[in-house]
Amino acid sequence: MSNSVGSRFVVYIFGQSHAPCVGALIEGVPAGIALDMARIEAFMARRAPGGGLATGRRETDAPRVVAGLNEGGKTCGAPLLALIENSDARSKDYDTLGDTPRPGHADYTAYMKFGAARDVRGGGQFSGRLTAPLCFAGGVAMQLPELRGVRVGSHIASIGNAEDKRFDEMGGDAAAFADLAAKEIPALSDAAAENMRAEITTAREAGDSVGGAVEVMAVGIPAGLGEPMFDGVENVLASILFGIPGVRGVEFGCGFEAAKMRGSQHNDAFVPEGAGGIKTATNRHGGVLGGISSGMPLIIRVAFKPTPSIAMEQETVSLSSGEARKLSVSGRHDPCIALRAVPCVEAAIWIALADMMI
Amino acid sequence: MSNSVGSRFVVYIFGQSHAPCVGALIEGVPAGIALDMARIEAFMARRAPGGGLATGRRETDAPRVVAGLNEGGKTCGAPLLALIENSDARSKDYDTLGDTPRPGHADYTAYMKFGAARDVRGGGQFSGRLTAPLCFAGGVAMQLPELRGVRVGSHIASIGNAEDKRFDEMGGDAAAFADLAAKEIPALSDAAAENMRAEITTAREAGDSVGGAVEVMAVGIPAGLGEPMFDGVENVLASILFGIPGVRGVEFGCGFEAAKMRGSQHNDAFVPEGAGGIKTATNRHGGVLGGISSGMPLIIRVAFKPTPSIAMEQETVSLSSGEARKLSVSGRHDPCIALRAVPCVEAAIWIALADMMI
Amino acid sequence: MSNSVGSRFVVYIFGQSHAPCVGALIEGVPAGIALDMARIEAFMARRAPGGGLATGRRETDAPRVVAGLNEGGKTCGAPLLALIENSDARSKDYDTLGDTPRPGHADYTAYMKFGAARDVRGGGQFSGRLTAPLCFAGGVAMQLPELRGVRVGSHIASIGNAEDKRFDEMGGDAAAFADLAAKEIPALSDAAAENMRAEITTAREAGDSVGGAVEVMAVGIPAGLGEPMFDGVENVLASILFGIPGVRGVEFGCGFEAAKMRGSQHNDAFVPEGAGGIKTATNRHGGVLGGISSGMPLIIRVAFKPTPSIAMEQETVSLSSGEARKLSVSGRHDPCIALRAVPCVEAAIWIALADMMI
Amino acid sequence: MSNSVGSRFVVYIFGQSHAPCVGALIEGVPAGIALDMARIEAFMARRAPGGGLATGRRETDAPRVVAGLNEGGKTCGAPLLALIENSDARSKDYDTLGDTPRPGHADYTAYMKFGAARDVRGGGQFSGRLTAPLCFAGGVAMQLPELRGVRVGSHIASIGNAEDKRFDEMGGDAAAFADLAAKEIPALSDAAAENMRAEITTAREAGDSVGGAVEVMAVGIPAGLGEPMFDGVENVLASILFGIPGVRGVEFGCGFEAAKMRGSQHNDAFVPEGAGGIKTATNRHGGVLGGISSGMPLIIRVAFKPTPSIAMEQETVSLSSGEARKLSVSGRHDPCIALRAVPCVEAAIWIALADMMI
Repeated sequence: MSNSVGSRFVVYIFGQSHAPCVGALIEGVPAGIALDMARIEAFMARRAPGGGLATGRRETDAPRVVAGLNEGGKTCGAPLLALIENSDARSKDYDTLGDTPRPGHADYTAYMKFGAARDVRGGGQFSGRLTAPLCFAGGVAMQLPELRGVRVGSHIASIGNAEDKRFDEMGGDAAAFADLAAKEIPALSDAAAENMRAEITTAREAGDSVGGAVEVMAVGIPAGLGEPMFDGVENVLASILFGIPGVRGVEFGCGFEAAKMRGSQHNDAFVPEGAGGIKTATNRHGGVLGGISSGMPLIIRVAFKPTPSIAMEQETVSLSSGEARKLSVSGRHDPCIALRAVPCVEAAIWIALADMMI
Repeated sequence: MSNSVGSRFVVYIFGQSHAPCVGALIEGVPAGIALDMARIEAFMARRAPGGGLATGRRETDAPRVVAGLNEGGKTCGAPLLALIENSDARSKDYDTLGDTPRPGHADYTAYMKFGAARDVRGGGQFSGRLTAPLCFAGGVAMQLPELRGVRVGSHIASIGNAEDKRFDEMGGDAAAFADLAAKEIPALSDAAAENMRAEITTAREAGDSVGGAVEVMAVGIPAGLGEPMFDGVENVLASILFGIPGVRGVEFGCGFEAAKMRGSQHNDAFVPEGAGGIKTATNRHGGVLGGISSGMPLIIRVAFKPTPSIAMEQETVSLSSGEARKLSVSGRHDPCIALRAVPCVEAAIWIALADMMI
Repeated sequence: MSNSVGSRFVVYIFGQSHAPCVGALIEGVPAGIALDMARIEAFMARRAPGGGLATGRRETDAPRVVAGLNEGGKTCGAPLLALIENSDARSKDYDTLGDTPRPGHADYTAYMKFGAARDVRGGGQFSGRLTAPLCFAGGVAMQLPELRGVRVGSHIASIGNAEDKRFDEMGGDAAAFADLAAKEIPALSDAAAENMRAEITTAREAGDSVGGAVEVMAVGIPAGLGEPMFDGVENVLASILFGIPGVRGVEFGCGFEAAKMRGSQHNDAFVPEGAGGIKTATNRHGGVLGGISSGMPLIIRVAFKPTPSIAMEQETVSLSSGEARKLSVSGRHDPCIALRAVPCVEAAIWIALADMMI
Repeated sequence: MSNSVGSRFVVYIFGQSHAPCVGALIEGVPAGIALDMARIEAFMARRAPGGGLATGRRETDAPRVVAGLNEGGKTCGAPLLALIENSDARSKDYDTLGDTPRPGHADYTAYMKFGAARDVRGGGQFSGRLTAPLCFAGGVAMQLPELRGVRVGSHIASIGNAEDKRFDEMGGDAAAFADLAAKEIPALSDAAAENMRAEITTAREAGDSVGGAVEVMAVGIPAGLGEPMFDGVENVLASILFGIPGVRGVEFGCGFEAAKMRGSQHNDAFVPEGAGGIKTATNRHGGVLGGISSGMPLIIRVAFKPTPSIAMEQETVSLSSGEARKLSVSGRHDPCIALRAVPCVEAAIWIALADMMI
């Protein structure tokens, strides 16, 4: 099932941008859980558009759970089905896109895969709108590993050339997570946040967009998660993360920096901790060794490309005539998808952790 | 099945470094194929150790196919089973590692996952030795998409601070692939290769190791491969690539660079090509848009950490006593796993392509 | 995903009897299909209750497709989601069943699996109500293999001691299928149908229920479907059929009768047919040899137990007190689930065929 | 992966009758288990041919475990790979079968599926020889649920018209299991065993074969196993059982008899047991309600067709010329596969239980 992830905590995402709804089907939630719906909606609200930095499209995004709960509202062991209506979709904005694929977008490849019958409205099943149910699923997922002490937080690592500090400079502390979640631009450094705001504003004013990266950290993970050889922590996480629209790279620990390092610089020394315990003195491995969690904080960075839909004029081709065309995308689009992707990345981590820890 | 990848062309990798054998079980090879075993062995030989730049361990690596062939030696539709004997394993080299986990290696996490019963000899199932059957599988896999015109090549993108040119600077031409496969250090630039050799030599002489990155390109891919939302080209490839020991990051197209770019810089214009065809004028998207192949060359970079096993003294902890220990790893180890990983990365690409194209 | 079947044409069934809805999520329908919704609803209507022989519960069962269609109403390649509202559910009928499990029903095992949080209303996810979305999925599935000439029909093979003729006595002809689908009691023999009616009426008047068997035949199946060793035609079909509530046995061809036969009686001779073709002179093998379809009609029989919910007084135990109790089930229940199960069995066959033939 | 079963305890069967070997790959055995190899071989010996009632083909069937064990011979958490060599294969016996498919056998369907490249020697991957690794896997699997008190036994329920008593007449007692395993004809009733011997002898002397049925019972199963809707106990078991060559039907509890019964006859009353416990007074449901185990003994019957390979002359068709031919199969074949299938059925149950209980 290509639209699903997980083997024990399974999340299936469905819907298209302008279909009656998008939603998520979740299998594997234990029976008897009183889901905190307010927390789920608050989590989803972090990806909802709003403010001057994002699209003007209003989405209520209120999920409606129509299966999987018992009379008292607790999970009953049956699959959970949540629907999110697409109330504010303006199909007309996209009328012209059926014939002239947007550069950098899935318009063209969707046509090559599904032909004329693809849903062209708003990107169809390739729309960023599909991350709303992903965040719903993340909001459900988080309520399971949290019971075992796991905490997940994330920040914008960079937007354009504006770079934030890194989690490993902060000592792997989860204290900052709540603050980050409340910020309009969730950066560790306030100065970096201002630089990021400038990057976005400048790009938007030019009718352009800008890329960015998200760093996520999970603490309280038990050692021993992940299964060799192809269900290791990295494999599982990457296979979900690359499902978020716009992701172009995923790295763990030092990531691509590790390729420049010596073994003596990169290896983390093992040191005794407490009564018979062991930890690493540093955390360049980002909490995963050989695909198996080490118990140290899990550290992942995810690169997002700039929003492909921009107002600036671009070159494309008419699918019907094969002739070159000019295209200026006039719909409402976020100038920086990385900003709204922060909770999506967290959702992916929560879903993967729920799957590995249930 | 955590040790397998694929859904139609399925590869299952098994074995441990010092078990009687390692091997691969492959399901999905069509009946009636006369596998070119000489090519498979030549492909596997590219990862085999040899020369001053790699471990002194001699491995014949000759795969023996014991199931899946008919009387005439062609595939018969039944699963293919290949065994590779572990003939030159010296368990004594690893005697002390059972109690003192190597920094940066899976020794510790394997212990946390499987306990005292884990196979400590040579890294057990976490050994780089498992990439021999992965390359066997890659050698089988390549014989399928090749029939449809696909070509795959790769080079060392960097070792330490020595960087090669990139494929996109070469115009996406497959002509260089054969040369690359024959080189001891497969770099596009000879000057870069010399710098890489110096990086490795210097590291080895210091009892140290060094990281590196591999860039791989596949040309001739049809548009339309990949399934939304979580079986896109990137998801499938990343979930295999992160199974190769030592991988810390995977990126497509511009990858992490895309996070620094503007949309107007990153988007690839669509232009007419030939009779009614369409291509992109540039290939920053690396052949994948929205998880679906565009028909342009697929470009991927993979970061490898430095070999964790180094002769330099490191700090670790005795698992039995919980006390701090010093450790100097004396076995034969490659100073740069990225070098031997080049065919492994190609194998992963071939396996994924076979799975998506069968 | 335990609530789903299939690997290419994937059907996921969700919902509970008294949740807001039940439904089906379907992946693998090709893009560009104009689904014949009227046919789907007509197919579903065959399982809908009605007449004196079934429950008085009224269900409209109109499926609403909320995802997977494009602007023109054709499939677009995205997963299809159909919702069926539970409009006429009277939870109060089931109030007492939470504490006193019905003999022969899943009430007790659901409690042992999911505990107090299980959905007790109307059998929750174990309700026969879940066969409505199964039939929806069957109605979608049929529109694919039908294009390749496949036809499926079924009849009640027996109810209690009233037995119908068998398909193989009719010569494997699909001509009778349309008539069967229109009958209140779909039997090949009208005399048998009257005996069956008497069995049901007598049982119902006694406050009792009665079991039955369904025989299904599919013609026009190409030879070569099914994958050894555990995805053979029988494995795939049985794994779906045993998901229909009340199924106690599944057999192919001569089934359990084959256990009494000699090889010389059971083997079907191969004979030439047409230009170079081959068929079997008889069809005791029921269209499957070695798990692979032979091209002859597929013949399957499925045994259904009597409806467990009966008005007659039965013995049970209070889950809360552990004390013995008497129970008379007063809700509206079909006296013979086999009767309504006929389209469910067909749906299972269509789903399996779609999965193997797509 | 069509040649595998299970999701947590995964068994992959490979090989062909006359390939160098057949074998099993097993994933999910916990680390640290000292497998009792003598018991595994004793279990496998129960399916080995021998005596006047079975084929004269001698097979040593000694499995060699070449991966998955640590230095001390215990499981290490890596996948277990067992090879069984095909030492006594006489390919010449089968020389003529390539062109003239045996009635009732997979020869024809294998040709239709895999074409000329299929392995014709000894039935290739469709050979009963594949049940040797299935029994190896069953012998491994049994060592897991046994630790939790599960016991499995089986007997020949019938051969031809000779019928044994049923387990439910014996009160669900596991005491008889050891005796049954040691018998040449494992029947509960000695008189029935003699009748069965006569059925086999008569058939063999006529150059014919005879069908049979196997009944298997598992006691000590915890309540709550099985997952709705398509991974219930019956679905899981049937999907494995139908992988055993020659199986034509599978039924649970009263099975097809249930279709003739009234609800009041078939329902098992719930009664208090011990301190707060519940059981059913009778066990017509065979230990499964709604796909979930009830804690009562699991009772399954499996129908086997007569061995298709018989010495009597039969009609077939030349695949090359399309002309009718006469065929008399001269190789060594069991006159009654049901007899040797008894441990195979047990193996299937053990594998399914290991998968559901790990």
